[in-house]
Amino acid sequence: MAIVVQKFGGTSVADAEKIRRAARRVIERKQAGYQVVVVASARGQQTDELVRDALELNPNPPQREMDQLLSTGEQQTVSLFAMALEAMGYKAISFTGGQIRMMTDGVYSKAQIKSIDADFVRRELNQDQVVIVAGFQGIDEFGNITTLGRGGSDTSAVALAAALKAEECEIFTDVDGVYTTDPRLFPNAVMLDEISYDEMLEMASLGAGVMHIRSVAFGKRYNVKIRVRNSGNDNPGTVITHEVPQMEGVLVSGATIQKDMAKISLIGVPNVPGMAAQVFTRLAEAKVVVNDIIQTEISPEKANIAFLVGTSDLPTARQVADDLQKELHCENVFVRDDIALVSVIGVGMRSHYGVAEKTFGALAKAKVNIDSITTSEIRISCAVGKDEVERALEAVCLAFELDKPARQRKPV
Amino acid sequence: MAIVVQKFGGTSVADAEKIRRAARRVIERKQAGYQVVVVASARGQQTDELVRDALELNPNPPQREMDQLLSTGEQQTVSLFAMALEAMGYKAISFTGGQIRMMTDGVYSKAQIKSIDADFVRRELNQDQVVIVAGFQGIDEFGNITTLGRGGSDTSAVALAAALKAEECEIFTDVDGVYTTDPRLFPNAVMLDEISYDEMLEMASLGAGVMHIRSVAFGKRYNVKIRVRNSGNDNPGTVITHEVPQMEGVLVSGATIQKDMAKISLIGVPNVPGMAAQVFTRLAEAKVVVNDIIQTEISPEKANIAFLVGTSDLPTARQVADDLQKELHCENVFVRDDIALVSVIGVGMRSHYGVAEKTFGALAKAKVNIDSITTSEIRISCAVGKDEVERALEAVCLAFELDKPARQRKPV
Repeated sequence: MAIVVQKFGGTSVADAEKIRRAARRVIERKQAGYQVVVVASARGQQTDELVRDALELNPNPPQREMDQLLSTGEQQTVSLFAMALEAMGYKAISFTGGQIRMMTDGVYSKAQIKSIDADFVRRELNQDQVVIVAGFQGIDEFGNITTLGRGGSDTSAVALAAALKAEECEIFTDVDGVYTTDPRLFPNAVMLDEISYDEMLEMASLGAGVMHIRSVAFGKRYNVKIRVRNSGNDNPGTVITHEVPQMEGVLVSGATIQKDMAKISLIGVPNVPGMAAQVFTRLAEAKVVVNDIIQTEISPEKANIAFLVGTSDLPTARQVADDLQKELHCENVFVRDDIALVSVIGVGMRSHYGVAEKTFGALAKAKVNIDSITTSEIRISCAVGKDEVERALEAVCLAFELDKPARQRKPV
Repeated sequence: MAIVVQKFGGTSVADAEKIRRAARRVIERKQAGYQVVVVASARGQQTDELVRDALELNPNPPQREMDQLLSTGEQQTVSLFAMALEAMGYKAISFTGGQIRMMTDGVYSKAQIKSIDADFVRRELNQDQVVIVAGFQGIDEFGNITTLGRGGSDTSAVALAAALKAEECEIFTDVDGVYTTDPRLFPNAVMLDEISYDEMLEMASLGAGVMHIRSVAFGKRYNVKIRVRNSGNDNPGTVITHEVPQMEGVLVSGATIQKDMAKISLIGVPNVPGMAAQVFTRLAEAKVVVNDIIQTEISPEKANIAFLVGTSDLPTARQVADDLQKELHCENVFVRDDIALVSVIGVGMRSHYGVAEKTFGALAKAKVNIDSITTSEIRISCAVGKDEVERALEAVCLAFELDKPARQRKPV
């Protein structure tokens, strides 16, 4: 019998009525002949409330105890979810991460899943039970409760779908699916019927908040068909899947922006091997997350190294840069703290030319000045002034026809 | 190193300030050289809130899911408690019932403890950790979470004290200790320095709400010294322990009342062997809890059988009695629904005469009419009209000098 995994986020189970609505989703699948595994998050603001309770007692709470505390939110949801299904006439049984032996490493607050007791879950499914699993949590080899970090319930769901070889992993959320870009910024954005894992990874890492990057990477690795859809309507949503040939016909699948960025430039760094490694090791040691790196040679002896960081990391990054300036005898350090990134993403870039030109042309036409450019195989990002980023996004969206479904766009 | 177990009820950990206050209790013991195990209940009204959430989704929630849900309340408290201790400079680690392998049978909502992994707890104590254990919960052999029912955290604490051979099990609550009687009813009641398990069991079963009967029975069985004390002050509280010779010098240790009782009398039951068994088997099948039984022979052929039940059980009990009347051809069924019980309790009764006479004399002097009388080896209970029970309690308290510490009373 085919298995489907359905994941419901905190807003989709925030109160009794929403839990019942989610339970009806399960019943639809049961009636269609599926075995159903549900993964649920903590209700609404429960996790935030627990964090507040913890900080009231300890401004720097031990991570183990934090995981022990936060895991209760999901445990509450799954037992309530099972009760709701029972009341609606369906057999249901809830489990914590530990109970299905969702084994993780011992890195509290951002543990990685190592294995799942899929046979245990299958036995329950074969008893006609809907199996409801607490997302976001596992246990380490000593029985300590661990949590998987931000977006962890998505990862739990995708991991379960992989372990059970589920036909599909449905991620229910409060948006209809994945859009070409954020509809709040570009109201004519259209929903994508499907998107490749790689494109979704670029979108996620650039701040499209629909799914956490780790769960998408997991899905890619284990080939899990993921469907992002709205828990409040019947829209089929967006399928995240392996790249299929027709995706290549689409030049750009989506565009994103990332605000609150800063750029630090080390000017006149000695142009010797290992210099970049030294700079970025120091930044990593200071726990600064570096987004993009731009290195340019300015003479045989000197180079400029620039990098983008979130503004929250700027004070630390600046300190590291100032230290490095002295140690490396750089000429100068420049900081620009009003940067934002606009990016276009599409697997079609791999086989088509002209995306960069079209992007730069659109920005030029919109009179947006480009500070710097970075690219990956399926992405082009331009750093622009933060006041210009919305205009920049609109310009690239119109240039790549992101207000139209892919099949209605002009052929590449 | 000596071990002490400290149990904090819901009101003693209701908010951050109270958790810190409880943590200071732990630190006092640590500083005095003890290894400390803490058992904590859910914070304040948390359990009631979870029950309400459950009933909103399912008026008759499956017990397994209910236990899965309710166990989160204690889990939250223990992790927060550990965080508080860490913030105060002490090493602390929290565990769920399952994590210390508090094994129970599989009877959800009123599971019985079968074993505890005391070695596991000892290893943590020997790492200089304060071990904080979620009360009220365990797991069955399949890893399902179970709860121990009302007063379950007391039982968890006493069981841990037994398994660890702790010097003492302190039960912190919101009263100073065990009183000769309820001070709200008899303001001159005095606190007892010590009380025997058997007396406490009689007190508990008659409604003195300080400790749950099961935890006292557990303490008696495994010889755990239990100290009931106030989490808000330094009063040494009441020690519950094995009977010591000097206890016998005290005629009556305490007095209790039980309101909301009813008496059903089957008049003219055939006086043949097995009749009482038949009556009480039928009541048990109907899940009626019978408090006291009074049987009297009225002729060689006929007897009267009367019994006391709580008024909540009266409709069911009455139905059973009516059915029995027809089947057994009894002459009549009488029901009195305005009964209350006043009881005096003391191990001293075993070796002294005159307690009954003194009790009846006191009630007669106070012009309280006695409906019926039942006794155990260390208890005398009189059923009286519910409007007279407070007056009856005062009369017996004064007669047995329960407004004075035992050593100041007139010698027996």
